[in-house]
Amino acid sequence: MRESLDPRGGEIRARSRAAALGQVFLSLNARGRAEFLRILAREFDLDPEEVSRAAEHLSRAADPLDKREARRELLAAVESPRAQILRRFNALPQGVKFLVDLRAELLHLARKEPVLGSLDDDLKAILTSWFDVDFLDLRRISWNTASGALLEKFMAYEAVHPVEDWEDLKNRLERDRRYFAFFHPRMPDEPLIFVEVALVKGMADNIQALLDPAAPVGDPEKADTAIFYSISNAQRGLAGISFGGFLIKQVVNLLVNELPELKTFATLSPVPGLRKWLESVLAGEGEVLRSTELKRIRLWTGSEEANRWILRCMEESLWRDDAEIEKEMKAILLRLAARYLAREKREGGRTVQHAARDPVAHFHLSNGARIERLIWAADTSTKGLAQSAGIMVNYLYDPKAIEENHEVYRSGGEVAVSSAVRSLLKG
Amino acid sequence: MRESLDPRGGEIRARSRAAALGQVFLSLNARGRAEFLRILAREFDLDPEEVSRAAEHLSRAADPLDKREARRELLAAVESPRAQILRRFNALPQGVKFLVDLRAELLHLARKEPVLGSLDDDLKAILTSWFDVDFLDLRRISWNTASGALLEKFMAYEAVHPVEDWEDLKNRLERDRRYFAFFHPRMPDEPLIFVEVALVKGMADNIQALLDPAAPVGDPEKADTAIFYSISNAQRGLAGISFGGFLIKQVVNLLVNELPELKTFATLSPVPGLRKWLESVLAGEGEVLRSTELKRIRLWTGSEEANRWILRCMEESLWRDDAEIEKEMKAILLRLAARYLAREKREGGRTVQHAARDPVAHFHLSNGARIERLIWAADTSTKGLAQSAGIMVNYLYDPKAIEENHEVYRSGGEVAVSSAVRSLLKG
Amino acid sequence: MRESLDPRGGEIRARSRAAALGQVFLSLNARGRAEFLRILAREFDLDPEEVSRAAEHLSRAADPLDKREARRELLAAVESPRAQILRRFNALPQGVKFLVDLRAELLHLARKEPVLGSLDDDLKAILTSWFDVDFLDLRRISWNTASGALLEKFMAYEAVHPVEDWEDLKNRLERDRRYFAFFHPRMPDEPLIFVEVALVKGMADNIQALLDPAAPVGDPEKADTAIFYSISNAQRGLAGISFGGFLIKQVVNLLVNELPELKTFATLSPVPGLRKWLESVLAGEGEVLRSTELKRIRLWTGSEEANRWILRCMEESLWRDDAEIEKEMKAILLRLAARYLAREKREGGRTVQHAARDPVAHFHLSNGARIERLIWAADTSTKGLAQSAGIMVNYLYDPKAIEENHEVYRSGGEVAVSSAVRSLLKG
Amino acid sequence: MRESLDPRGGEIRARSRAAALGQVFLSLNARGRAEFLRILAREFDLDPEEVSRAAEHLSRAADPLDKREARRELLAAVESPRAQILRRFNALPQGVKFLVDLRAELLHLARKEPVLGSLDDDLKAILTSWFDVDFLDLRRISWNTASGALLEKFMAYEAVHPVEDWEDLKNRLERDRRYFAFFHPRMPDEPLIFVEVALVKGMADNIQALLDPAAPVGDPEKADTAIFYSISNAQRGLAGISFGGFLIKQVVNLLVNELPELKTFATLSPVPGLRKWLESVLAGEGEVLRSTELKRIRLWTGSEEANRWILRCMEESLWRDDAEIEKEMKAILLRLAARYLAREKREGGRTVQHAARDPVAHFHLSNGARIERLIWAADTSTKGLAQSAGIMVNYLYDPKAIEENHEVYRSGGEVAVSSAVRSLLKG
Repeated sequence: MRESLDPRGGEIRARSRAAALGQVFLSLNARGRAEFLRILAREFDLDPEEVSRAAEHLSRAADPLDKREARRELLAAVESPRAQILRRFNALPQGVKFLVDLRAELLHLARKEPVLGSLDDDLKAILTSWFDVDFLDLRRISWNTASGALLEKFMAYEAVHPVEDWEDLKNRLERDRRYFAFFHPRMPDEPLIFVEVALVKGMADNIQALLDPAAPVGDPEKADTAIFYSISNAQRGLAGISFGGFLIKQVVNLLVNELPELKTFATLSPVPGLRKWLESVLAGEGEVLRSTELKRIRLWTGSEEANRWILRCMEESLWRDDAEIEKEMKAILLRLAARYLAREKREGGRTVQHAARDPVAHFHLSNGARIERLIWAADTSTKGLAQSAGIMVNYLYDPKAIEENHEVYRSGGEVAVSSAVRSLLKG
Repeated sequence: MRESLDPRGGEIRARSRAAALGQVFLSLNARGRAEFLRILAREFDLDPEEVSRAAEHLSRAADPLDKREARRELLAAVESPRAQILRRFNALPQGVKFLVDLRAELLHLARKEPVLGSLDDDLKAILTSWFDVDFLDLRRISWNTASGALLEKFMAYEAVHPVEDWEDLKNRLERDRRYFAFFHPRMPDEPLIFVEVALVKGMADNIQALLDPAAPVGDPEKADTAIFYSISNAQRGLAGISFGGFLIKQVVNLLVNELPELKTFATLSPVPGLRKWLESVLAGEGEVLRSTELKRIRLWTGSEEANRWILRCMEESLWRDDAEIEKEMKAILLRLAARYLAREKREGGRTVQHAARDPVAHFHLSNGARIERLIWAADTSTKGLAQSAGIMVNYLYDPKAIEENHEVYRSGGEVAVSSAVRSLLKG
Repeated sequence: MRESLDPRGGEIRARSRAAALGQVFLSLNARGRAEFLRILAREFDLDPEEVSRAAEHLSRAADPLDKREARRELLAAVESPRAQILRRFNALPQGVKFLVDLRAELLHLARKEPVLGSLDDDLKAILTSWFDVDFLDLRRISWNTASGALLEKFMAYEAVHPVEDWEDLKNRLERDRRYFAFFHPRMPDEPLIFVEVALVKGMADNIQALLDPAAPVGDPEKADTAIFYSISNAQRGLAGISFGGFLIKQVVNLLVNELPELKTFATLSPVPGLRKWLESVLAGEGEVLRSTELKRIRLWTGSEEANRWILRCMEESLWRDDAEIEKEMKAILLRLAARYLAREKREGGRTVQHAARDPVAHFHLSNGARIERLIWAADTSTKGLAQSAGIMVNYLYDPKAIEENHEVYRSGGEVAVSSAVRSLLKG
Repeated sequence: MRESLDPRGGEIRARSRAAALGQVFLSLNARGRAEFLRILAREFDLDPEEVSRAAEHLSRAADPLDKREARRELLAAVESPRAQILRRFNALPQGVKFLVDLRAELLHLARKEPVLGSLDDDLKAILTSWFDVDFLDLRRISWNTASGALLEKFMAYEAVHPVEDWEDLKNRLERDRRYFAFFHPRMPDEPLIFVEVALVKGMADNIQALLDPAAPVGDPEKADTAIFYSISNAQRGLAGISFGGFLIKQVVNLLVNELPELKTFATLSPVPGLRKWLESVLAGEGEVLRSTELKRIRLWTGSEEANRWILRCMEESLWRDDAEIEKEMKAILLRLAARYLAREKREGGRTVQHAARDPVAHFHLSNGARIERLIWAADTSTKGLAQSAGIMVNYLYDPKAIEENHEVYRSGGEVAVSSAVRSLLKG
């Protein structure tokens, strides 16, 4: 490592040595890599004394020339040697991908070792500069142009609705679908984030229907609604560097240009934290049910405690064959889901204040969407029931309202909702 | 400007506002732009107090978590608001080019206004990160693939041997020539730096012969020597961010692969500061001529003072029709040129110590070349005579010696020379 | 040649031998090539006896199977051995271009040697099949994408208004111009035919104004008229295989899609045969002038005979400084030009009946255009005066009328003209 | 149809009408299409009387000019109106593919209707000209560049060893495999023919081992042998227009350039007609077994007749668990297979004389390969057993012997074999 900082031989040699060092890292096992990162973190940090000295010079500098000199000294002092080494890893054949993957490992380790967290701060700063959103290419992915290798990656990286097989993927690339991804010019074979869109009539309300390969292919020219039904980050090493909002905005622009008939842009999204939250509130002290609900439930349950019964009902989908139970459960759960989405805030969030507790809700709300509709039995897959109690949400992106929605959410955590959702919340 | 820093509306809106601000800048006249930059420089700099506070926190931080927190605070404090604004200009349609051009203007203004110099420090830091050499594309330029628009730019950007016309350019792209340039993925139509190579037998010794469109085209397969006869930076806004050494190294690698017969890699370079330096030493106090030389010159000149006569001789190329005078002048000027190149150091160079006084010499020496040969009457163009007294130099890139040459030059200013040049220096 | 017909070694070997034979041809001088072609023409023609036999078999064949057999025999008999050899030249590295160039030479020689004309019939048949218009690529040529080598070819191939220099070419590729060419997939670097279009307001009436590099660049979005001001065949070896009509039609379609504001599609064309024809009628017996004209001319000329004076007047542009003379000449020459274009037929035309005498007129009329306007002093270049007496024509392509215009012209030679031109003809 | 021949409106209109006619054809059901083709065949054939007249003119023509005229008349007479219509279908959006698919249908119908066979002769002549092998692009297919849609087609078109699934296909595109296909520039998404190559050490002897996705990936740099293990025609409509030999030759050239270590080029091929032929000879009158074989077989079979027992043995793979039986069967079947491949000729072959009875053998032998080795139990898939009795063949392409092998096979049907195969034949 010291060698890749050695000024002798010039920058060209320093980069060669850094590349060799990178190859060493790649040849290590998990333990070796962790140790490598620890050394990098501990021994090549910035020097606080240098920083203090420079800061002092700056505060004392009187005329512009001195000030400039002091500023330079300061900027040099805060650029840690380890940051220089990290930058030079770019000289590896797939240097950018190397650093992104390195960060994925580093993030994992950093959870327990703050010193590695600090190293990650340096790496994140580099990647944030390199992955400036305006450097990225937005590419439409299609069955006719995307390579087998790339398609395979989309299957692997899908994070919302797992791709069953090649038929399933092909179906998501049909004429009435759109599939977009961001790429970095130096990682042309690696998507960074991607979004899947269905072009339909009216707002979609069931994910299984949407993904059914047997369903007839629609005419995109006749669609009035674009449903963003899946959005996945593909690189763990870019965690915290956010592209999603830009992706949605640019895709909306592209779609508007291509298909002027499209009037509505909305998502069909899971509520991944709902079940867990329901379990905690139903197990908690406060009363979440209304008296009329309690009365009806007692009729069915006999001795079983109402809250517990609801939990079991979800666990075992007891409503499946009983329309009356389903009606009850639907009313209760939609009401609670609305509360969860629109009222519950993330705990201990220092970076973002007033953030919605549900991560998907937070993502769309901070991008300026509003909660348009909650849909019962919209995702009856195992995952959909286990995480979201089968409920899905349409978040609506109304170009005219995006900015204000974003504003009120960011500044005070106020959540934009449709009148239907407002009724649920009041009800 | 404040608006493009406004956190309201999120990063997407902030970028839109920055883009709008960039459009405003583009619509201003020179005076307006200067004022724009002054405001940016003065009102959006970092806050020294914040920096001091953060530096203090850091020096006091005991456990790793506190230290990380303090480090973050510090990094946030040194990222000036104006740097944020500059980054966001990337949202302009040709954002990267915009910033490069902005810096060209800024550099010009900064010569007289230190506060703008300090703004340039921020901009340079951003561009240094974005123009990391490993992000660049090395492209071979050919008559059959380069567009008219691109070829036109190469004509305009040529800095060493001006391109006369399209025929001249076409001649530089012939079968026995190579032409390479670095490009940034976000400025695909703008070369950053480019190099022109002639594939010849033996080391070339005359630039007019090399550029003669009437000369027969050689067989590249039979060439044993690659002459780098012109290397030009194309973007003033990237001054101080250096790619030349990388370019030469990568081009050597490409040529070795393509044409294994190539054994020698050398330049045919001007000595742009020679005439000026000669004028100062000849007008100075010290005696630069030897007694035998003085004697012979007196024979020719009569009453005219020898040094002055030499100056006039260069001015008017008096040797043209007199073989004896030419012989005398050649001996004197080559000897002085060798001294200039190998011994004279740049004055007041704080950034680089022991730098050769001649900028072209410094460039090649710091890339690890050695001074192989000085050639009399190698560039008899008006510019060649006016700047270099008609003398050119072959700098030799010997792959086996590059690293050591670089090393001794960088560490102590020692200049690698061939035995022939050593004789000149001793003689 | 016999070897490249030799069935031994199979088709693969036969093609190799043909390629070798083609290399031999390329190494010959003009005389050797002519002899080569004569041998090919004489010794490798089809065998009339075989043809007769097959024709007889066919006429006698009764049941479908016999008929098919006889047909096959016939088709084999009419495929001459020399045609087979020609096809196999396709195995040369630039086989298609080789055959096109071969035909250019052949056509030249065939003017005097009918046996070579017959060889050309075979070659033309092959090229007609290979250059089926639906195999061609229509490419828009632009300064930003076309290579130096390609642009150079357009300069060389321009047949109507010679390109002065690179500035002139660049001007023809400006934002308010369009430049399209047909290419064959196996000759991607060689245009077949190309057309130059100016996007203007109102019908252009002066070619010098149109080509003036100093003229301001117009806004293509605001243009209402597309002027096809130059159309050139680039390959002499494709003479008689016609693409021009398809090119105009496809370009009109592209322009309509790109710029919906365009309402008028017309040419600004020379009248290349006018001067020659004027000279013959003015020197002939018939009286072409009216008595009032004669009277006025006599006033000016004194003893000189009126027709001869007109010829001299054209020769020396006598009207230049005399508005009265110009008025007279303009009236006379426009009237005669209208007659020439709309009434005069090509002599001895066996292939096309009723063809207009002027080749450019014939080209546009048979594509369905009408003669919209004759313009005085529209091309005052040396060439324009020498061939067209300075007069140019707007041929109008009115999508609604194209088919009928074509029809009446093709069937009976009737020429579509505007009412203004009709007045000229009557007047 | 008459309309698309109508000269009115010119070639441009005629093509539009032909395109419309093609759309009509596409909208018809199978019956309608057959009728369409019958009308085309019957009513738009050439006119034998015109042909006879032209043939007579040609035989009587004395001077070159008359001869040329008569030849033109003849060539015009043999170009049937239906051929003109077919050519004009090229104006359809996917015109070439349309004609190729049309021919696939036509060939199917023509088996029973000679008049359609004659129409096919015209269509085949057009496609033969358009699909001249030197127009084709040879493309290497790789997992990293080929699109999902294209890969899907390779799966569907594989004719030798069916592709199980995407994993199987990916395995065939691994680092130690090569996959090449010919494409026509106007059918860029449709392979015409493709070949699959394994880069191995020594001649491969088992197809299941070769295709095993679990087998380790080899190092292509270390391979000494290229095994062409599958070659498939992808377009039924190009039957009889042969590209296979060219494909093998070009692929050998590419591989030699890429991997100079490759010394041996051979196939691993099925013997698709073997089982059928064995069944007929074993059921026939002649004695194919030797007395020692008969004796041994009687010991095992008791009362069952030996030939019949062998048939049953193949049917039921009786040798599977009995080494002695396998040894016997292997000896008998390899001997008979060698006879089948090297001695048996196709019956009634008028077009090709002395053609080997086995189609795969004929393909490779006429391309100049020799029968190098017969391998027992080399393809134990259901198809391999059912068609080839599990036997496969290495055909060897020895660049030095290809031409002579081809020659003796084509001229007299003599089959090149290795000494090992010669022993089998003699034994």
